[in-house]
Amino acid sequence: MMPEIPPHSAASGKQPTAGHPQADLDSSTAPRLNFASDNVTPACPEVMAALIEANQGSVPSYGEDELTGALNQRFSEVFETETVAFPIVTGTAANAVGLSAMTPGWGGVLCDQSAHINVDEGGAPEFLTSGSKLTGLPSPDGRMSPDALQEALALNREKGVLAPPFKVLSLTQATEWGTVYEPAELKVLTATAHGHGLATHMDGARLSNAIAHLNCTPAETTSQAGVDMLVFGGTKNGAMAAEAILFFLNERTRPMVAAMPHLLKRSGHLWSKERFMSAQLLALLKDDLWLRNGRHANAMAQRLLQGLLHHPAAHLPFNVQGNEVFVVLPDPTLARLEKDGYRFYRFPTPPGVPGTLVRFVTSFYTRPQDVDALLAATFAP
Amino acid sequence: MMPEIPPHSAASGKQPTAGHPQADLDSSTAPRLNFASDNVTPACPEVMAALIEANQGSVPSYGEDELTGALNQRFSEVFETETVAFPIVTGTAANAVGLSAMTPGWGGVLCDQSAHINVDEGGAPEFLTSGSKLTGLPSPDGRMSPDALQEALALNREKGVLAPPFKVLSLTQATEWGTVYEPAELKVLTATAHGHGLATHMDGARLSNAIAHLNCTPAETTSQAGVDMLVFGGTKNGAMAAEAILFFLNERTRPMVAAMPHLLKRSGHLWSKERFMSAQLLALLKDDLWLRNGRHANAMAQRLLQGLLHHPAAHLPFNVQGNEVFVVLPDPTLARLEKDGYRFYRFPTPPGVPGTLVRFVTSFYTRPQDVDALLAATFAP
Amino acid sequence: MMPEIPPHSAASGKQPTAGHPQADLDSSTAPRLNFASDNVTPACPEVMAALIEANQGSVPSYGEDELTGALNQRFSEVFETETVAFPIVTGTAANAVGLSAMTPGWGGVLCDQSAHINVDEGGAPEFLTSGSKLTGLPSPDGRMSPDALQEALALNREKGVLAPPFKVLSLTQATEWGTVYEPAELKVLTATAHGHGLATHMDGARLSNAIAHLNCTPAETTSQAGVDMLVFGGTKNGAMAAEAILFFLNERTRPMVAAMPHLLKRSGHLWSKERFMSAQLLALLKDDLWLRNGRHANAMAQRLLQGLLHHPAAHLPFNVQGNEVFVVLPDPTLARLEKDGYRFYRFPTPPGVPGTLVRFVTSFYTRPQDVDALLAATFAP
Amino acid sequence: MMPEIPPHSAASGKQPTAGHPQADLDSSTAPRLNFASDNVTPACPEVMAALIEANQGSVPSYGEDELTGALNQRFSEVFETETVAFPIVTGTAANAVGLSAMTPGWGGVLCDQSAHINVDEGGAPEFLTSGSKLTGLPSPDGRMSPDALQEALALNREKGVLAPPFKVLSLTQATEWGTVYEPAELKVLTATAHGHGLATHMDGARLSNAIAHLNCTPAETTSQAGVDMLVFGGTKNGAMAAEAILFFLNERTRPMVAAMPHLLKRSGHLWSKERFMSAQLLALLKDDLWLRNGRHANAMAQRLLQGLLHHPAAHLPFNVQGNEVFVVLPDPTLARLEKDGYRFYRFPTPPGVPGTLVRFVTSFYTRPQDVDALLAATFAP
Repeated sequence: MMPEIPPHSAASGKQPTAGHPQADLDSSTAPRLNFASDNVTPACPEVMAALIEANQGSVPSYGEDELTGALNQRFSEVFETETVAFPIVTGTAANAVGLSAMTPGWGGVLCDQSAHINVDEGGAPEFLTSGSKLTGLPSPDGRMSPDALQEALALNREKGVLAPPFKVLSLTQATEWGTVYEPAELKVLTATAHGHGLATHMDGARLSNAIAHLNCTPAETTSQAGVDMLVFGGTKNGAMAAEAILFFLNERTRPMVAAMPHLLKRSGHLWSKERFMSAQLLALLKDDLWLRNGRHANAMAQRLLQGLLHHPAAHLPFNVQGNEVFVVLPDPTLARLEKDGYRFYRFPTPPGVPGTLVRFVTSFYTRPQDVDALLAATFAP
Repeated sequence: MMPEIPPHSAASGKQPTAGHPQADLDSSTAPRLNFASDNVTPACPEVMAALIEANQGSVPSYGEDELTGALNQRFSEVFETETVAFPIVTGTAANAVGLSAMTPGWGGVLCDQSAHINVDEGGAPEFLTSGSKLTGLPSPDGRMSPDALQEALALNREKGVLAPPFKVLSLTQATEWGTVYEPAELKVLTATAHGHGLATHMDGARLSNAIAHLNCTPAETTSQAGVDMLVFGGTKNGAMAAEAILFFLNERTRPMVAAMPHLLKRSGHLWSKERFMSAQLLALLKDDLWLRNGRHANAMAQRLLQGLLHHPAAHLPFNVQGNEVFVVLPDPTLARLEKDGYRFYRFPTPPGVPGTLVRFVTSFYTRPQDVDALLAATFAP
Repeated sequence: MMPEIPPHSAASGKQPTAGHPQADLDSSTAPRLNFASDNVTPACPEVMAALIEANQGSVPSYGEDELTGALNQRFSEVFETETVAFPIVTGTAANAVGLSAMTPGWGGVLCDQSAHINVDEGGAPEFLTSGSKLTGLPSPDGRMSPDALQEALALNREKGVLAPPFKVLSLTQATEWGTVYEPAELKVLTATAHGHGLATHMDGARLSNAIAHLNCTPAETTSQAGVDMLVFGGTKNGAMAAEAILFFLNERTRPMVAAMPHLLKRSGHLWSKERFMSAQLLALLKDDLWLRNGRHANAMAQRLLQGLLHHPAAHLPFNVQGNEVFVVLPDPTLARLEKDGYRFYRFPTPPGVPGTLVRFVTSFYTRPQDVDALLAATFAP
Repeated sequence: MMPEIPPHSAASGKQPTAGHPQADLDSSTAPRLNFASDNVTPACPEVMAALIEANQGSVPSYGEDELTGALNQRFSEVFETETVAFPIVTGTAANAVGLSAMTPGWGGVLCDQSAHINVDEGGAPEFLTSGSKLTGLPSPDGRMSPDALQEALALNREKGVLAPPFKVLSLTQATEWGTVYEPAELKVLTATAHGHGLATHMDGARLSNAIAHLNCTPAETTSQAGVDMLVFGGTKNGAMAAEAILFFLNERTRPMVAAMPHLLKRSGHLWSKERFMSAQLLALLKDDLWLRNGRHANAMAQRLLQGLLHHPAAHLPFNVQGNEVFVVLPDPTLARLEKDGYRFYRFPTPPGVPGTLVRFVTSFYTRPQDVDALLAATFAP
């Protein structure tokens, strides 16, 4: 029997702000069974409306349009520091093209072993940086420890010319395991990196989920936490296809900004009709839509978590702090879910735990009834 | 005084099919003054409608959706041979990522000196192919001659290891100077290339304009003319942002197709919500919208040409066969046009001709009254 | 007190063939204190003589000379299969340029975490392969286990386009920790790799030391053990500067061979006066000089090992099977050695062991009295 | 009948210093028939002696040895400015790795169309710079004109992001057509380049020949002529295999110098036994051996030129100012020369001239009797 779930209760210490009521996106009343990723979603209605509105008249191409012109100001307000924004169409491109501005090909990038750039981007960082070596440090839950960072920096220095010198520290917020760094933790890591001459990169594909969990301002966990460059995720959070590479201006980032237009063009990532990416980003920023979407997704993940906590065979290896729920479930249960049409990803399962580790991802598009149905299916005999 | 212009008359020998009446795209009645490029346009209404329709429900990401699944069949019908299509978001990416499937980094690409890949893509082909050298052959009007091709191939062979061996012949249809290859001309070039072990690439950013001029089938100037890989241009012809890399299946292209998913991913060009690119492409293919858009653009270029032929100071260095009108005009005339809000690009002017070479580009979005107004402004005292 | 050492006794089960008496290379009678690496050595006299002999007359450049022409035949004899050899001047180049023939940039290379290509080549493999991602598997002593290989292959397949598909399995013989694979172990690994469509690469910078330990034929641990491409190390084993990239001809390697001349040229690794590299390699092969050099180096390492086994504070984490002795020694001892002029490298020390892990490398140039002096210094109060 | 040739007479205005008597390098009295290139030669005796001398004892690897440590001082003296030298083993590597320190992959390199980097290095510059686009300007004789440079810079600026911004001007001294820039000509070109923010690269594979022709100091045509980075050619001028990448220290070159060790390592061009390259370079610098070798080669070219000037069917398209003689000769004559064992390269022949353009290259290794024999063979009926 599945226990009754109190709506929006939080597993972690912080109380997530309740999700906003999501306007119906489509006429279909079909159940939403796809928890494989937050990128299986459509665009949210506000984004679609913005695209329609942007589709008026001839405007200069290659980012000389008014919408693109407004981005820097808007992002500077949101992140409370002078920011230069470069829209780009996929998260992999945002990370890899951005990194190519931060390190020469002979430099190294230090990240968590689980980082998206390290294991999920098909070698794009290595390729688009012209060969930068990524070094992934092991960690229990996707969050790099200050000690591991210090050791890696020391070893790298000793290696001299035999190892590419680290030029970038890359952190993921929220992490790939759905956990979240505290701003104070970030500050220690970024200060160490800066002290060793590295620039700092944040993969913020799920930044809104981290902010929702921390209940902090966007700046507190990015620009004010020592981040030099932020990949602002849009596609997983309601855009059709739009991310932004954000440089918070300082001595380190100024030369990177100068190189960016060329790096975008030579990788085929300079849109001619750039207004259509900018429109999506502006729509997400307007009235904090991106944060509201993030809060809603987190609330749905918490709803799912609360249910699973009562599941006798469920094992939850990580804190659920964003919109991803990793859970080990019995294989027959998973087989039945898939037969019922549910979609989710399998992961290598920690040894000694019966069942298989899977991931359920919630989003702005997930409704409470979708979570409840999933839970019911999970508890079905 | 500006002479009266007979609507839709043709300068070249072939009679272009009259443009279709273009539905009003925006409520604005403002004049359309931007002739700088066909990429300053919005998306055409059919494409926008397709995007809205595609925005329904969760669907698998990374091209596993139904719309993307329908592309190969549709393109195979249009080009009358088994075709594998990879949507991609910019023309530069389409050319450069496509080329990266066709040549290793140590191979060479042979093209016309004026080719977009050679002079307008910010080094993307060199970068995304990991260093392939482009060799641009001079030509009078953007169309490579069979003799120039033969000589280049012979010299390349003699060079041995000192020169990257040519692996790809790249042709542009319509060319960068607005001219068009006859299918018979293409066949000679592609047969020569194949005979020397090269694969053949066609940059079809303005293919619809070439087809409109030739009044032929899409296959006649592509798959049936010896082209192995075609970049199908969408963005300049009514899409928001969508091109397609098309491989016509044969022994040469099969291994290229196998590499493509990885090449797309590692260059950041694999959309998670790929349905939104595919929807645009399907909309362009539906009821030959792309061909109708091309014919309309050509008709507008012919209208402009007819007017300019009566201009006493205009010098037209190239045949106008697509949607680009290159014309040398007196500098005061150009200054006045710009002051009036007209937009166009300047080009290096052939020596001995007074004035400056400029380019006016028409599109699906150009109306007869826009051309007439431009002409009137050109003739103004 | 340092115990008496029986000359040439072996710690491991196999009895290494006694080293050949090494002709004095230089007039200096100075002690040889540099155990940092086998690349601090001069060229051995036979190699120097070969260079002098090769310095006669004009000969065709770029490998068209007679000496280079003789390489394939000689290597084919040594490795008992049809072999194509490409001389190249550094070990890093040999590995990385060789790998660039074995995988496209979008492919992955699987190796031990300790592999030279993974941690000591300054990112050359990533760079020269145009971005191939290296995945280093953890192991206790530098030798990959069949289970780890199977798991890595399975995970890679599941990842699909999100991870570069493995194209190469790279093994190091002898390993970076001075251990040696048995031929039967190699066969299991290479068969698994071939079964999954990977080609196999062996970093043989210290192959002669492995062969000396195994007391086998060169073919038994390379061509007959499923290796497709072998980096034949010369510089550490008596050459001035010469390695060879060897392809054992089969269906997998034939296309790699065809690409090699271009890969060498475009990376700046095609010598114009190639006779001078080939002369060195032929000198090493003549009368098994390379194997004799390897046996001598191993014997010196065993001599050192035997002494250290009696050291009360020495901890030896790995089997000494080649010419590298890894040992944890007390920090005061190491400080004194350095003060006495000894040279060696420090490594990250396993936790819980007092002292510091260092490496002593012996070579064809190491004399018994040099080892004995080092031991005496180690035991000094 | 072949006319008598006055020894060492000069065709150009300047009197070349007479070549030094070259010690016999080999015992062979065979005629030296190979005029294909200056890289078909052996090492000169002084270089060989230096290699033997360097082959003493263990020394630190990777350039930490004393010989390498002496290079900067010696080159600084020769070029009369603070110089940092990086030995490297081939000319192609010297150019391409050096360029990779001077431009990011998204920058462009401007050179003469005939430049070795543009047409003879197998794409190494494009590859090792990670995609920099080379733009080759046409010229009559390999020497770029200031006007062509100005135009190219202006067009590049106008292109904006569509063309890789030029970061390097590359000049070849002596040029690929055997001509030589005057220092004043170089100064105009380098000042223009610096004024547009470009750094300046000189391919000095045949610098000694240019200096011999100009009868100037090494500094006058390099460091004092506005060159930032010089590739100092050794291999064609008596080395076994050694070039040097020289940075003349200034604000532009300082960051390049910092990157060089990493660029060398990741391209496989950091020798472990670097002493052996440094020894060759020091031998060339000692007592101006490199300049004496260059003067001798030039004198031999002038001797050949004087003979050919009397040949009724010879057409000499370029001034002979270095050690390369380009001449159009009748095809039967060339066929006979080849049959007699002579070696030379064919080049595309200018239209309208009967016969074939070939190149004869002289060197330190060419003797007067070799030239005379070649001439006699050329005049044979």
